[in-house]
Amino acid sequence: MAEAGLAADKVDGGVRSIARAVDVLRLFDVDHPRRTLREIVALTDLPKTTAVRVLATLDALGLIVDLRDSSYSLGAGFLRWVDLAGSLWEVGADTRRVMTRLVDTCGETVNVYIRRDLSRVSIAQVEGTATVRSVVKTGVPYPLETGAAGKILLGGASESVLRQLHERRPDLDLDSLCREVLGIRQAGYAVTHGERELGASAVAAPILSADGRVLAALSIGGPTSRFTADRVVRYVDAVTESAAEIGSIGLGSVEAFL
Amino acid sequence: MAEAGLAADKVDGGVRSIARAVDVLRLFDVDHPRRTLREIVALTDLPKTTAVRVLATLDALGLIVDLRDSSYSLGAGFLRWVDLAGSLWEVGADTRRVMTRLVDTCGETVNVYIRRDLSRVSIAQVEGTATVRSVVKTGVPYPLETGAAGKILLGGASESVLRQLHERRPDLDLDSLCREVLGIRQAGYAVTHGERELGASAVAAPILSADGRVLAALSIGGPTSRFTADRVVRYVDAVTESAAEIGSIGLGSVEAFL
Repeated sequence: MAEAGLAADKVDGGVRSIARAVDVLRLFDVDHPRRTLREIVALTDLPKTTAVRVLATLDALGLIVDLRDSSYSLGAGFLRWVDLAGSLWEVGADTRRVMTRLVDTCGETVNVYIRRDLSRVSIAQVEGTATVRSVVKTGVPYPLETGAAGKILLGGASESVLRQLHERRPDLDLDSLCREVLGIRQAGYAVTHGERELGASAVAAPILSADGRVLAALSIGGPTSRFTADRVVRYVDAVTESAAEIGSIGLGSVEAFL
Repeated sequence: MAEAGLAADKVDGGVRSIARAVDVLRLFDVDHPRRTLREIVALTDLPKTTAVRVLATLDALGLIVDLRDSSYSLGAGFLRWVDLAGSLWEVGADTRRVMTRLVDTCGETVNVYIRRDLSRVSIAQVEGTATVRSVVKTGVPYPLETGAAGKILLGGASESVLRQLHERRPDLDLDSLCREVLGIRQAGYAVTHGERELGASAVAAPILSADGRVLAALSIGGPTSRFTADRVVRYVDAVTESAAEIGSIGLGSVEAFL
């Protein structure tokens, strides 16, 4: 699954080493608790000597643990941020209950996405019940311009966000994207098939603040083969209803950042 | 409470920017979810322009969120590591039950410390019941050469660790430290008062692997005023018993790193 590019590509020379370190750390997640040096070199495109130096630095800082067999894992130093990140960014228990009920209704994975600059990031996820299911990761930036949740978030973004997006991706047809986003905004929901990834479909609706701002997008995602027309109709009803419910409850402490 | 120094002091120029970024991130924890630019500058000793650049870089990477009022918090990007760090480094549920029972017995805060190079880090904590209590943080490196848990961990470390410690702190009386550590190792427990911090006492015992290696130290910590002689006797019994029990259960998946 394509993330929104390597961090080191995005920033200038003076801060490149920070971005490189973050690129290395981003290789580790629940599905990849260990990485070999070979993988790290291949996935970051760093020269081997640079990768080794970055790993040694992160090891000294407690953020990486060298398993002494040319493989690495995440260090205990992360524990200091675990509770804080969870408490800052996790949605409230009531929101999670609404999400769980939505999963019970439709069987597919449900996410709450927020916009971070030109990306979207899931801050909460309840996994679907089927074996084949959507596997986006929380905390990971995905493109804003593709997928139902991205379009919903664009509907709440300023024009300058659309312009910046166009600067980054001059191949985008800005006029047509604007029209689409406006249409979605008026409809109050978005349905996409295979936009971000072939075979992946999603239905999303905006979570609004009391004063009508788009705080987040609630989305149902899963394999296109299961997103048949009759089901999509039901999903649209379910997701818009749940998003409205979350909007009236409030997202929890995370709203302070949105 | 003194941590084991700022990260940026420990590494050479080429990787200094990574260490600076980590120094900034380390200012955020459950007790400090927000930091002003002024605090960040004061606590890291970075020039203001450097601090602003590091913060902007971390913001672009999703690890810091700029709250637009000259204050900052931890970014949603950390969510990707929350589950992994928790699952890698958290001790098993059985261990946590033993720790909770120990807190119920003695009322003081209980920690499991591991050695990370020349530091000790708590990977699990159950807080005591009193208002005045020990406030070490999980995931944060503390000096290895002070405190009961540090002495226990030194008892399991190789001579080269003691030598490196002496290189870093030439003021340490290595002979006397070696004798003390050997004595503690034979006794099977350590008691310290005010070593790491005036007014803080601790009682600790080793958690051993099946083949007798020191994996971790289990410690009871709290204000010296409550660590009276008669209580310490009971705490020593309780902590050695609990440490033995955890050793026979096993620490959980974290043992793979120890």
